[in-house]
Amino acid sequence: MKAVVLLSGGLDSSTVLYKAKADGADCYAISFDYQQRHRQELDAAVAIAKSAQVTQHQIVAFDLTLWGGSALTDTQIDLPSRPIEEMADHIPVTYVPARNTIFLSFALAYAETISAEQVYIGVNQLDYSGYPDCRPDFIQAMQEVFRLGTKLGREGQAIEICTPLINLHKSAIIELGNDLGVPWEQTWSCYSDGGGSPPQACGQCDSCQLRLAAFAQLGLSDPLSYLT
Amino acid sequence: MKAVVLLSGGLDSSTVLYKAKADGADCYAISFDYQQRHRQELDAAVAIAKSAQVTQHQIVAFDLTLWGGSALTDTQIDLPSRPIEEMADHIPVTYVPARNTIFLSFALAYAETISAEQVYIGVNQLDYSGYPDCRPDFIQAMQEVFRLGTKLGREGQAIEICTPLINLHKSAIIELGNDLGVPWEQTWSCYSDGGGSPPQACGQCDSCQLRLAAFAQLGLSDPLSYLT
Repeated sequence: MKAVVLLSGGLDSSTVLYKAKADGADCYAISFDYQQRHRQELDAAVAIAKSAQVTQHQIVAFDLTLWGGSALTDTQIDLPSRPIEEMADHIPVTYVPARNTIFLSFALAYAETISAEQVYIGVNQLDYSGYPDCRPDFIQAMQEVFRLGTKLGREGQAIEICTPLINLHKSAIIELGNDLGVPWEQTWSCYSDGGGSPPQACGQCDSCQLRLAAFAQLGLSDPLSYLT
Repeated sequence: MKAVVLLSGGLDSSTVLYKAKADGADCYAISFDYQQRHRQELDAAVAIAKSAQVTQHQIVAFDLTLWGGSALTDTQIDLPSRPIEEMADHIPVTYVPARNTIFLSFALAYAETISAEQVYIGVNQLDYSGYPDCRPDFIQAMQEVFRLGTKLGREGQAIEICTPLINLHKSAIIELGNDLGVPWEQTWSCYSDGGGSPPQACGQCDSCQLRLAAFAQLGLSDPLSYLT
């Protein structure tokens, strides 16, 4: 059974890759260089793909700074650093218009070409539920696109979208990842670039805060290096 | 009213651009350099965008030869040249997995960022109905993705997908384009690269045959230069 796994290099997608492996899939990872501000995550994706011994790892490059519209693709917009309890209130400036739609579209193209049966994606709707393209109804709509927009789907063999994290809180994702042996020190969640060697996460942005709080909640320490 | 228009540089999408203009839209064209074999169409897209005096023209580049899977992205696969009556029988080798899904995803990202209200695409289901991602049920599924996968959509302002050609035969598209003043000599439909200056279409591939037959049916001559 072949599966395409969307791999950003963050905590969630790395856990999903290990979950797909545990499910018995022959894994084909796909990552995206969209000129994101936090380019460090691409190095993380390469390292994780190697650790997980995927069959193939494709990195698709395109430039979303062409139109920007997000703090992750326009450096004129400041990265948010908010108390966790405020994060779910509204869609944050780190929202990248149609990002998961684009990512899933490429994953679909790749999956159909290699005759994969599944596409795994690490969306979750509980933490950071502000993002519209991380919710179950969006995934369901994309599943219809997978069915109707491809040759395989029209032949009754639609590629299935698997979202094993969709109802998990960050702390439950870490527990799952621990069980699966995800090498957290190789992942990258921070919205900033890190820089230096080894790279250091900022510890301040929304993404770092969510990650650190989840490790703390479990009484674990995050092996990543942090600036603050 | 702002509209994003998918512009390949071919006969259909060029007509759609002129239709969007005639509908009163402030037009933002988007084209894709996906390392397609018929790169000549990108020059055509630039020329047509200029002729139609669009407000902006974005060309998004990515490499679909990474995985191939189509005669348009893998030069090892021969271009088809079939009698027209056989073309609707099955999905041809020029089918590019998930291409319209990818194109519409980028159009959605662009449209949301510039607050456009519409995305125009030149799909039609009558000629070449073999393509799964040119049919109304696929467009309807993408419309749901437009609604659920974006901030604007969640706020009740979903960007609308407009498909003015969906029920037109090629000859009716040419009649519409004639009414709208589309400069056919600047368009490019051929699946091969053309080469030379001025470029010459092959006249043999499925796409050339459909185009030539439609002009002939109307008793018109196609102003493009053909090799045969």
